[in-house]
Amino acid sequence: MRALVFHGPERSSWQEVPDPELEAATDAIVRIDTTTICGTDLHILRGEVPDVEPGRVLGHEGVGEVVETGADVRGIRPGDRVLISCISACGHCRFCRERGYGQCRGGGGWILGRTVDGTQAEYARVPFADLSTHPLTGPVEGHDAVLLADVFPTAYEVGVLNGRVGPGDTVAVVGVGPVGLAAIATAQFFSPGRVIAVDPDSARLDAAKRVGADAVADSAEDPERLVDDLTEGLGADVVIEAVGSPRSFETCTRMVRPGGRIANVGVHARPVTLHLEELWTKNVTITTGLVDTYSTPTLLSLLCAGRLPTSTLITHLFELDQMEEAYDVFARAADTGAIKIALGETARPLVARGT
Amino acid sequence: MRALVFHGPERSSWQEVPDPELEAATDAIVRIDTTTICGTDLHILRGEVPDVEPGRVLGHEGVGEVVETGADVRGIRPGDRVLISCISACGHCRFCRERGYGQCRGGGGWILGRTVDGTQAEYARVPFADLSTHPLTGPVEGHDAVLLADVFPTAYEVGVLNGRVGPGDTVAVVGVGPVGLAAIATAQFFSPGRVIAVDPDSARLDAAKRVGADAVADSAEDPERLVDDLTEGLGADVVIEAVGSPRSFETCTRMVRPGGRIANVGVHARPVTLHLEELWTKNVTITTGLVDTYSTPTLLSLLCAGRLPTSTLITHLFELDQMEEAYDVFARAADTGAIKIALGETARPLVARGT
Repeated sequence: MRALVFHGPERSSWQEVPDPELEAATDAIVRIDTTTICGTDLHILRGEVPDVEPGRVLGHEGVGEVVETGADVRGIRPGDRVLISCISACGHCRFCRERGYGQCRGGGGWILGRTVDGTQAEYARVPFADLSTHPLTGPVEGHDAVLLADVFPTAYEVGVLNGRVGPGDTVAVVGVGPVGLAAIATAQFFSPGRVIAVDPDSARLDAAKRVGADAVADSAEDPERLVDDLTEGLGADVVIEAVGSPRSFETCTRMVRPGGRIANVGVHARPVTLHLEELWTKNVTITTGLVDTYSTPTLLSLLCAGRLPTSTLITHLFELDQMEEAYDVFARAADTGAIKIALGETARPLVARGT
Repeated sequence: MRALVFHGPERSSWQEVPDPELEAATDAIVRIDTTTICGTDLHILRGEVPDVEPGRVLGHEGVGEVVETGADVRGIRPGDRVLISCISACGHCRFCRERGYGQCRGGGGWILGRTVDGTQAEYARVPFADLSTHPLTGPVEGHDAVLLADVFPTAYEVGVLNGRVGPGDTVAVVGVGPVGLAAIATAQFFSPGRVIAVDPDSARLDAAKRVGADAVADSAEDPERLVDDLTEGLGADVVIEAVGSPRSFETCTRMVRPGGRIANVGVHARPVTLHLEELWTKNVTITTGLVDTYSTPTLLSLLCAGRLPTSTLITHLFELDQMEEAYDVFARAADTGAIKIALGETARPLVARGT
């Protein structure tokens, strides 16, 4: 089969590799119909995720058809169409028993495209297949469903639920790439008073409005002042950090009101400065989190009900064989306007998507 | 009357000052029978709390008898014995309505001994007297009750409740001065699996054992390793920071397990480094907080029931007129063995307290 193989920093190729095979009785082999590229994949290509070794097939998001299952797989069978979750789960360790699948100690967690071969391929081996896949029984398109492998559960669990968004809340979302946009969209489920999107990219701010932002601010133009103006100087009830930089995190800590919550979703490569000399009296709550994907069944039912604006996030569709071109378009998002791309069976011309 | 007056960094004196008078219809004047000194008072004396101006009477903890009330005070009257809370509360602003009294926007919050004259005096004016005092009807000693002005509600609300201590939890308390000890004591209400006390002072670690610590570690001798050993390398469910230093805070972030909680109680004068490059995947929750004192009625009932080890925390008793000596003993705690001192009517020789 063909797959996107990491060969070390700045080097990867779409190439022939051996077909994956069952290795454990809990594995499934899935034919990938749709996959996508995550910002984390770009971090890997830059050599910033040291536990990814050369030779690894990348990708942790996918939709496809089960072609083979190990003897112990009970919940899916060949022919089933499934969503492959970015998080694999043994189902037995103390964290899995508490639905903390992202922290799985039994061999799961975020392993696909990191410590085992992933989903940017024609076929993928999915470990712990029962808990690491979700059957797709409704009429959902692959490029919509694939956003529920990582983007939507991450935004919802690590941003909206950890941030405890509630009715009437002022919610600031700092960084509106795919996850920030999904946070704005899923924050709507809790009837916030207003959602403020902050980003340097005007096209992304336009997308933020389409998924529910009430106000937008250019990161470079004093977004804290907008929050102050809208909250009579109090600050936001919830601030969702979806960038992953020290500067952005500090902005978030200045935007939050006394008693408010900061939900960190961003992937950080460096330490940040936490101004406890100001925050110690402020009764703030700061949360971090790798997604657990316990919310994926809920999100799938919302998707089938037409209540997730997945299409607004997808700006580009490609065939699987266009993987290298797709990476290039995604990596140059500032120029290409890419937000989220999808690759696979549903490729077709995109005309003014998301408008 | 006489009072402890701040005259600028490193300068204070117990001296004659005018008696306080009612200034608002919601004020009460209280004759101070018992007061104490807080670590924060030492910060003020070092000039580290810039909003305390020279001429200010210090102190935010007290027990006494009401001698006069303004026309709008309904809940207490002259002759009542009351606990004066460190937090004053207007009762009407959005924060007070949500029991966030520490963040009061109506003129309250932590004002006593900071922006209005405080309780290290023979008499004190207590603003918003209805919500800022608690009637003492039970047979409690002043030096026990005074620990419920700040120490116990701070430890309980900002440490134990914010940290969501629960049955079976491994709880690490870093720093076991009065507030850390009170955190260990009140953590017991939630049946933790084990409480680990961390401090450089062996006398304080002994006190920690007396209030319920199951294991103790010298801060200088790799306390993280003890936590690791006791939790099979996982880390503590809850870590309570009760020091207020960057080093201590970083220790706490290394002690916490994936999915765990860090409750910051310490008063910080400087920013800390938050290692989000490690913590972003770890699903931790970090909370900060100035006490609200919503728990004081609960704590008073526990005190009356004999379920708070207040006496273990008090190492020294003085007369009010010994204020300057008391400050000296408290400031040199490492030499004097002082944990918490009390001043006032209940002064008497202490014989092997807390043993």
